[in-house]
Amino acid sequence: MKHLLDIADLSVDEITELMDEADRFHDALAGREIKKLPTLRGRTIFTLFYENSTRTRASFETAGKWMSADVINISASSSSVKKGESLKDTALTLDAIGGDAIVVRHPSSGAAKLIAGWTDEFGNGPSIINAGDGKHQHPTQALLDAVTLRQRLGEIKGRKIVIVGDILHSRVARSNADLLSKLGAEVVFVAPPTLLPFGVENWPVRVAYRMEPELADADAVMMLRVQQERMNGGFFPSHREYAARYGLSKAREKMLRDDCIVMHPGPMLRGMEINDSVADLPRTAVLQQVSNGVHVRMAVLFTLLTAGTDLEGRA
Amino acid sequence: MKHLLDIADLSVDEITELMDEADRFHDALAGREIKKLPTLRGRTIFTLFYENSTRTRASFETAGKWMSADVINISASSSSVKKGESLKDTALTLDAIGGDAIVVRHPSSGAAKLIAGWTDEFGNGPSIINAGDGKHQHPTQALLDAVTLRQRLGEIKGRKIVIVGDILHSRVARSNADLLSKLGAEVVFVAPPTLLPFGVENWPVRVAYRMEPELADADAVMMLRVQQERMNGGFFPSHREYAARYGLSKAREKMLRDDCIVMHPGPMLRGMEINDSVADLPRTAVLQQVSNGVHVRMAVLFTLLTAGTDLEGRA
Amino acid sequence: MKHLLDIADLSVDEITELMDEADRFHDALAGREIKKLPTLRGRTIFTLFYENSTRTRASFETAGKWMSADVINISASSSSVKKGESLKDTALTLDAIGGDAIVVRHPSSGAAKLIAGWTDEFGNGPSIINAGDGKHQHPTQALLDAVTLRQRLGEIKGRKIVIVGDILHSRVARSNADLLSKLGAEVVFVAPPTLLPFGVENWPVRVAYRMEPELADADAVMMLRVQQERMNGGFFPSHREYAARYGLSKAREKMLRDDCIVMHPGPMLRGMEINDSVADLPRTAVLQQVSNGVHVRMAVLFTLLTAGTDLEGRA
Repeated sequence: MKHLLDIADLSVDEITELMDEADRFHDALAGREIKKLPTLRGRTIFTLFYENSTRTRASFETAGKWMSADVINISASSSSVKKGESLKDTALTLDAIGGDAIVVRHPSSGAAKLIAGWTDEFGNGPSIINAGDGKHQHPTQALLDAVTLRQRLGEIKGRKIVIVGDILHSRVARSNADLLSKLGAEVVFVAPPTLLPFGVENWPVRVAYRMEPELADADAVMMLRVQQERMNGGFFPSHREYAARYGLSKAREKMLRDDCIVMHPGPMLRGMEINDSVADLPRTAVLQQVSNGVHVRMAVLFTLLTAGTDLEGRA
Repeated sequence: MKHLLDIADLSVDEITELMDEADRFHDALAGREIKKLPTLRGRTIFTLFYENSTRTRASFETAGKWMSADVINISASSSSVKKGESLKDTALTLDAIGGDAIVVRHPSSGAAKLIAGWTDEFGNGPSIINAGDGKHQHPTQALLDAVTLRQRLGEIKGRKIVIVGDILHSRVARSNADLLSKLGAEVVFVAPPTLLPFGVENWPVRVAYRMEPELADADAVMMLRVQQERMNGGFFPSHREYAARYGLSKAREKMLRDDCIVMHPGPMLRGMEINDSVADLPRTAVLQQVSNGVHVRMAVLFTLLTAGTDLEGRA
Repeated sequence: MKHLLDIADLSVDEITELMDEADRFHDALAGREIKKLPTLRGRTIFTLFYENSTRTRASFETAGKWMSADVINISASSSSVKKGESLKDTALTLDAIGGDAIVVRHPSSGAAKLIAGWTDEFGNGPSIINAGDGKHQHPTQALLDAVTLRQRLGEIKGRKIVIVGDILHSRVARSNADLLSKLGAEVVFVAPPTLLPFGVENWPVRVAYRMEPELADADAVMMLRVQQERMNGGFFPSHREYAARYGLSKAREKMLRDDCIVMHPGPMLRGMEINDSVADLPRTAVLQQVSNGVHVRMAVLFTLLTAGTDLEGRA
């Protein structure tokens, strides 16, 4: 495995191996006060973010640094992008500087894959990791969600996962649908027709328009972030209407089984897609998702950047 | 000591111990060309800045890196804050990622304390360090000022420290008043009534409206940064009027005793709160304050993040 | 050598030594999967950028980190600069914090030299490295161009280097004219009179207004970045007119000798100053320039910050 671009590229075995690796990092770090492995010493990781992010960029940076890599952050707002440089030349430049991996977030679907094509053309290019490309994919998010689900539910196969909200703009929904269905889960999308993507009938999911009928037998409910900037723009509901129909209110939370878990990729808008107190319940796995995010990104960087070495970096 | 939120939380002994520790770091580094201690290797420090800063953020980052910590910077302008995430969720996210400390600067008074409350609720949370919260507190600034005063004056007890300018908006003034009065200094605020905070009569300071009568017997004069953006807004004086009445001009500098020192927390507006040539006199301790800032932040990070280890990180 | 401010300060021997050192770093890293030397362990490098940059800042940061230095980035947009602090005080602050080197990019010509003057005044100040000051100098760019030319052409002396485009605003053109003429190359500027600087007749270059006559016997053609924001502003040509007269089109590329190389300091505007497919030809050395940039910056940091130690940091 050289790049991580799209869940569709991964076999069930590869997904499972990455998830197992993430759990191994979790265990390896759990026993240590000092979270520092020499695994990626001397490797250089560029984060190239064309969109704002706290958790994803910080999570990758933490993952890299805990394995002793050099992590160098490039944000589009302070970069040559403003001078009109193309994505291609920016990527080739980071390759030429000497990056072993480029972690890229970009508003356009397919950006990470394009970069991988360009950097591979000149031979021994860096590993490209898709940290979110437009509405398309966010593979490390899906992996960390799967790791969290497995930790909480024991097994993913046969489970019913309900994903609620603005599916249309959500790379999280798309990546999770791909990954969880591959692992044998039943994935249900709940959204109004105006917030569903074109062609959703061909996705490996079942679609519903109302939350209530889906809650009683759900194993997990995953609330999506509302793309606030898109609300009230014609086809979209108002804030109030959205919260009323697709928010995880206290009343809806009571419809869940005791062992059903609640997830959210963050950042959460409390009071909008999730009730404030529901966000802090023990069944809500949001912070566990965040913690697993670091382990998943360590697993991805480790898998892509090393071959045949152990966690201490020995061959 | 787990957090550093407010000078009011510290006993005289704790303050003195932090100051002594800062001097020890000063001495430990003075003899080395290579400024690198293994003390905090494997610890992760997040800086979370909701306001612009050069010196404070760079000073904390330097302090952390000189002790071999991983330092990861989050600035509000490029973070999930823009997506509407609450301060609470941002803090809990950084905790979940695995931060050992969060250094936070925020425009709202009390922000650091709120964060400490949230992260402590879930058990073994990170150390929270207040790097400036609104008009309220900036404890490491007060500590570095005290370290500087002690280095220059020998002792703080019984000394007269005159703090001049925009007291109303100054967390530096508030933190210093608390700390220096605890250590037995006489603190005098000099400001027009419109730039004094409500309730200042209950603070452990004496208030004066004119500079001249306070200068002859001062041991130190601390000029505050003018919050330029607040000038000329009704109750506030014009730039010219401010400089004329509350600036440390050459004429006023001549009224000081030879051994009186001049301080400024920076960034200085030369020509406004301090005359350009006065800012460069030997009696002006501004750059010594900056240098001590790194040692104080090393002392704080060391004290909060380690227990019973020496500077080399040995138990 | 303490600072690197201006190519004019360097002797031919000093230039050659820096170029040789860059090639040694290239060779030292080429054999290693792990790009990490202990050379600058415990040294602190501040990058202080008042203008946007991807490649230069990332290149310096990479160079410093590969030699194990601590690199701390300060960007003007998030710094005390916004609070009105002077360049002088910002520089003195970074010195007082403990920087061993300050890498500065600033829109004003002479900024780096001013900083060196201020920090030297107080004795043992940091090394100042000019990473671009207004229209004036960008010495590491000229050095990396020279390294690239020597690698491709074998020797620089006697070669004809044609520099094309917006000479007026280009610190790259100025630095290269100085350096390449010192090394014995013939430098030709090609630009319209409105894009030539005042006094160019006293520079060690020949000036031409049309590209075509200069191409057939050129050893290298260096295309400059068009300062887009200045186009169409009265004296300046339109985009279309610029591309037509000063762009390296396919037709013009065919006029070059087979062994002539094409260079560009980046970021490139494909379709403007260089044709898209020409930018990717084997004769185009753009990415080699980028790679050499890291080695040159390693050489500069090594030369300025160490004395008498080898690459492993041993005395």
